[in-house]
Amino acid sequence: MDKISTVAIVGGTHGNELTGVYVAKKFTNNQDLITRPSFLSQVVFGNPKAIQECRRYIDKDLNRCFSRADLQNSTLSSYEDTRAKEIQKILLSPQGKPYDVIIDLHTTTSNMGLSILLSSEHPFLLGLSAYLSLLSDDVKVCCSPKSQNAVYLDSLSDLGFAIEVGAVAQGVLNAELFQKTEKLILAALDYFEAYNQGKSPQIPGTLTIYNYTGAIDYPRNARGEIEAMIHPQRQFKDYQPLNSGDPIFLTFDGREILYEGTSTIYPIFINEAAYYEKGIAMCLTQKKTVNLSTT
Amino acid sequence: MDKISTVAIVGGTHGNELTGVYVAKKFTNNQDLITRPSFLSQVVFGNPKAIQECRRYIDKDLNRCFSRADLQNSTLSSYEDTRAKEIQKILLSPQGKPYDVIIDLHTTTSNMGLSILLSSEHPFLLGLSAYLSLLSDDVKVCCSPKSQNAVYLDSLSDLGFAIEVGAVAQGVLNAELFQKTEKLILAALDYFEAYNQGKSPQIPGTLTIYNYTGAIDYPRNARGEIEAMIHPQRQFKDYQPLNSGDPIFLTFDGREILYEGTSTIYPIFINEAAYYEKGIAMCLTQKKTVNLSTT
Repeated sequence: MDKISTVAIVGGTHGNELTGVYVAKKFTNNQDLITRPSFLSQVVFGNPKAIQECRRYIDKDLNRCFSRADLQNSTLSSYEDTRAKEIQKILLSPQGKPYDVIIDLHTTTSNMGLSILLSSEHPFLLGLSAYLSLLSDDVKVCCSPKSQNAVYLDSLSDLGFAIEVGAVAQGVLNAELFQKTEKLILAALDYFEAYNQGKSPQIPGTLTIYNYTGAIDYPRNARGEIEAMIHPQRQFKDYQPLNSGDPIFLTFDGREILYEGTSTIYPIFINEAAYYEKGIAMCLTQKKTVNLSTT
Repeated sequence: MDKISTVAIVGGTHGNELTGVYVAKKFTNNQDLITRPSFLSQVVFGNPKAIQECRRYIDKDLNRCFSRADLQNSTLSSYEDTRAKEIQKILLSPQGKPYDVIIDLHTTTSNMGLSILLSSEHPFLLGLSAYLSLLSDDVKVCCSPKSQNAVYLDSLSDLGFAIEVGAVAQGVLNAELFQKTEKLILAALDYFEAYNQGKSPQIPGTLTIYNYTGAIDYPRNARGEIEAMIHPQRQFKDYQPLNSGDPIFLTFDGREILYEGTSTIYPIFINEAAYYEKGIAMCLTQKKTVNLSTT
């Protein structure tokens, strides 16, 4: 693999996810923090108008606007469709190539700790993730198929990935999560620098990955209204095993709804505020261990 | 005092505070739960358009639109100003009097447990609060001056009060808080019924009240941008004493800002998402004990 020559740090792709917005502001005002000798770093504010209004988006979710077809479709003219096309241009290197790495900063109301969301098991990304996992037990690594990620901002780069930090409410800054997010990004930049210098840091021999397999919606009535809540025993239990017979929902009348699947799964994005409208109560993953020496 | 003859339960005064919205939906679909022999109960959805869009408000904060002057001002025509006038009409008894009691349901990203927000130390409200305090240690009682409350929806009634439940993110239903909120309201209705029957329940002899004394904003730069976050040692520590020298903020560079007041205060609404735009990082209260036998 070639050296990393361009890295973008994107905050505020969702305007009410303040950690990313303020980490990006800090880096904008302190460029020395993100400057490394061997590559170019750039900070981008994903959705300026949504940041201004402290909303996730204005017309539609920006982080679903990056399919190649939509980027080439000049009839799509919502604020976010237009902004997606701008971002694609901004994230071209001086040589006109897409940026090598995009780190897209997000927060979630789910208890996801410091989650690294990969779109492929590229050996470089696995090595980086293993290195970042050394920072804290809060670091978790998820991977979803390219077909799903192809609409995300970070898909503009082959080595793009997202960081999801939580649990934190929309519109709120949590100082502890702010500091952990900043530390994680700076460690990633250090890793890129070391790689470019031919001195990749020592990493663990194995890495735990949570592979996306699907999602579950809330129980809903014929009018589409939700009829149950995340069960209290499942709330904030992201990355913990869900076994057949475990409660997952509680109706407003207090009736438990149990998980009826036969295999153990690991739910994430449990009770994410922004996913009610997307029909997602939680995402499901399978846990696996990757042997890094063979990747 | 006369008997209670009309009680309104209002959900969704802020459209993204889902607990109140869904408790109100449950009561609408199960009128038997809120029906008592001696008074009329009514459920009202405060801000239907904001509920639909899962936003706090459309044009302006509905819960600041109820001053007598604004309600009489026909030139105020924003969605919320118009809705406030409608609600004032809805909350008139068959005899054309304002409702005796309004319970306005809110949630907060602050760790406020089950807070009862009074606008006066009316003996009836203190008795009710003492009764509700028996339900759970999470129940706390705050009181702010009439001058401040005069813009709130619940000020339409002399015995109006708000319930603030948290910590919970905007746009999220937390099953445990949902059930606790429902239980609290039903207990309040039972108390009204018992009062009307001349059988007011036994209550404790004293009640702890947190009296609003002011608010602190985030440190901001000349452009109005915040320059510090709630300190991790203060996050989620609503109702806990703040003493001179205790840290309250942490700048983005990691510098601590200490509380410099001389007297012990009890902050609430710490890091409430909706208050960033209002210039409030936390509200301050003084704690006192009221002897109920003398009220």
